[in-house]
Amino acid sequence: MRGVSVIGIGVTPFGTRSESVVELGARACGLAMKDAGLAPERMEAFFLGNFAGHAFTGQNHLAPMIAHASGLGPVPCSRLEGACASGGLAMRQGVLAVASGTADVVLVAGVEKMTSATTEETTRILASAGDYETEARTGATFPALFALIARRHMHEFGTTREEMAAVAVKNHAHGLLNPNAHMQKKITLEEALDARPVADPLGLFDCSLISDGAAAVVLCASESAADLHPKPVAVLASEQASDSPALADKRDITRFGATARAAERAFQQADLQPEDVDLAEVHDCFTIAEIVALEDIGFYRKGEGGRGAREGETALGGSMPVNPSGGLKAKGHPVGATGVAQVCEVVLQLRGEAGARQVPGAEVGLAHNLGGSGATCAVHIFSSGA
Amino acid sequence: MRGVSVIGIGVTPFGTRSESVVELGARACGLAMKDAGLAPERMEAFFLGNFAGHAFTGQNHLAPMIAHASGLGPVPCSRLEGACASGGLAMRQGVLAVASGTADVVLVAGVEKMTSATTEETTRILASAGDYETEARTGATFPALFALIARRHMHEFGTTREEMAAVAVKNHAHGLLNPNAHMQKKITLEEALDARPVADPLGLFDCSLISDGAAAVVLCASESAADLHPKPVAVLASEQASDSPALADKRDITRFGATARAAERAFQQADLQPEDVDLAEVHDCFTIAEIVALEDIGFYRKGEGGRGAREGETALGGSMPVNPSGGLKAKGHPVGATGVAQVCEVVLQLRGEAGARQVPGAEVGLAHNLGGSGATCAVHIFSSGA
Repeated sequence: MRGVSVIGIGVTPFGTRSESVVELGARACGLAMKDAGLAPERMEAFFLGNFAGHAFTGQNHLAPMIAHASGLGPVPCSRLEGACASGGLAMRQGVLAVASGTADVVLVAGVEKMTSATTEETTRILASAGDYETEARTGATFPALFALIARRHMHEFGTTREEMAAVAVKNHAHGLLNPNAHMQKKITLEEALDARPVADPLGLFDCSLISDGAAAVVLCASESAADLHPKPVAVLASEQASDSPALADKRDITRFGATARAAERAFQQADLQPEDVDLAEVHDCFTIAEIVALEDIGFYRKGEGGRGAREGETALGGSMPVNPSGGLKAKGHPVGATGVAQVCEVVLQLRGEAGARQVPGAEVGLAHNLGGSGATCAVHIFSSGA
Repeated sequence: MRGVSVIGIGVTPFGTRSESVVELGARACGLAMKDAGLAPERMEAFFLGNFAGHAFTGQNHLAPMIAHASGLGPVPCSRLEGACASGGLAMRQGVLAVASGTADVVLVAGVEKMTSATTEETTRILASAGDYETEARTGATFPALFALIARRHMHEFGTTREEMAAVAVKNHAHGLLNPNAHMQKKITLEEALDARPVADPLGLFDCSLISDGAAAVVLCASESAADLHPKPVAVLASEQASDSPALADKRDITRFGATARAAERAFQQADLQPEDVDLAEVHDCFTIAEIVALEDIGFYRKGEGGRGAREGETALGGSMPVNPSGGLKAKGHPVGATGVAQVCEVVLQLRGEAGARQVPGAEVGLAHNLGGSGATCAVHIFSSGA
């Protein structure tokens, strides 16, 4: 298997957008191809992450729709769905296509158009990512499931609401530095703690956003990457794992086995340790999810993830910035786009082009994308090759 | 890239089933793993074809759901969606995973649970596979789109309603020999011609069925296939192509460019010609679709596909049997399952285990799976290696 590099990235602004799901996807694809300096005809395959295009917009079969709107030729177009990890799965299939020599240049995108549905519809659609029989049908929506996880984490490890609120404050502060972020709003710890409850102990600011948006990347073989882009970023590892979808089937709900497995294998593949990572984009669908992810990936020991935001270690300027983009919390969470947008942020950082939110001297970055309450996880590690 | 073989197949009965979508998928997976003689722990990746699980059943994120219900470990589980070609896309990703060495043994499945929705809901859900803006929203459902194709084919080439009806009569006759087929019903040419109209010139018997069902296959590297199964079947080619999704964007609606491209490349990959194929499962979502597919694949010259069923050439006992399983027409069309079920039928035939519908001495078989009105196509060619 040969090395794979990212030579193009494109992200639309996240938020309430007037474009259709196809237009959003095509816009991100256009930006990524422009960044790569390659015409659509050069793309040899297309992988799209999308969670619920049909439910949100009436349109299924989105991969050839968006490829056609982006000017691609009659190349293989596949949609990947793994709930909120759909983008990460599309990324991994793209990486494998190039690594295996099936294609030399591929386009990967993720998209979701969510804001045209009512909040009630959206909650129901999102709940379909959990176990319908034992969760969604009984009213156990995702805020409820992650509230259970938060409560158990508090019970087991003494994690506090203040630590979760600190994640929100940090990611909102980061989002202010990202012009594409949905939520451009600074919040204080007090505001986060006093926000109206969503599912106890989670308040409004503990929850990520319902957003429209798209992101795309162009991948090629590392051996030709330098000919195509002045700052190619190498994919050091691309891993994916699964776990039981229903929370009731997990032995320990304070730990996501899929994250632990994917991350462990990714570090093996990259021949790196967690301490080698300069920045990470992790799946903070809820503030507790960022804390759990930091532990499962290995950045913190189990039960100590709350320290990251509390002590400022995971803030820009800290020892290991997490979610410099603003994360799902402030950048927004257009479900299918999220995993690809994380990759775009890491690549931007490793190129040294992240502007006001640049992590100085960043050389190694990690992207962690989670689906459902931990049933699917994709982890990618990148290097600037510097 | 190394050779890949099929060492296990499993198909549930197609029809109106009482099992849930997860139960159906897990049942097919169980049958395929049993046929391969391998425990679930041996599966290193899982690829699921599913079109609209959420719309039909409320359940998204089906890949880890079905993997978990099938006893698989925490391996990568990905759902592929390419409308009615979802199963073919899952098959291709499975083949590539083994060919590239990413995994040694993978499980591929396809599933759809459709009959719990009303016919009206189902029509609307299926329409989401076309271009929502220019087709579905204006009421151009799939029977309407294929009626346009049929009318144009009749106009251009003199294709007759009798030739389309002959496809239905043939596939119903084949279905009678398949215990898993949804429709166990012999029909006459007169019955097909006199059936109530659906979208002129297509009548009831020109349309495939709304079915529940699932299918699965186990793949491994060809080098170890003979150690694992007495009759491994080699994958000689796995190709996929796309075309513009909207019918209005096609220059010629009597020809599906995605089929022509995928088939041409598949024959190149296999180093074979259409005349080397002993039997084919093709995507007869409508009778006209079988005729068009026979032409696009290269079994007949353009405009002459109607001859196949009319002259009995594509019937069991004819020179090149097409859809010995009964096809989508009589076996049924649980959308996500279809592409994988086609592969199961070809493998059964190449093993010489198809019983009453066996094509004598079959050594090379082809499976053709189409999505939408030709936006996505997957073509696989197999050999018994005899």
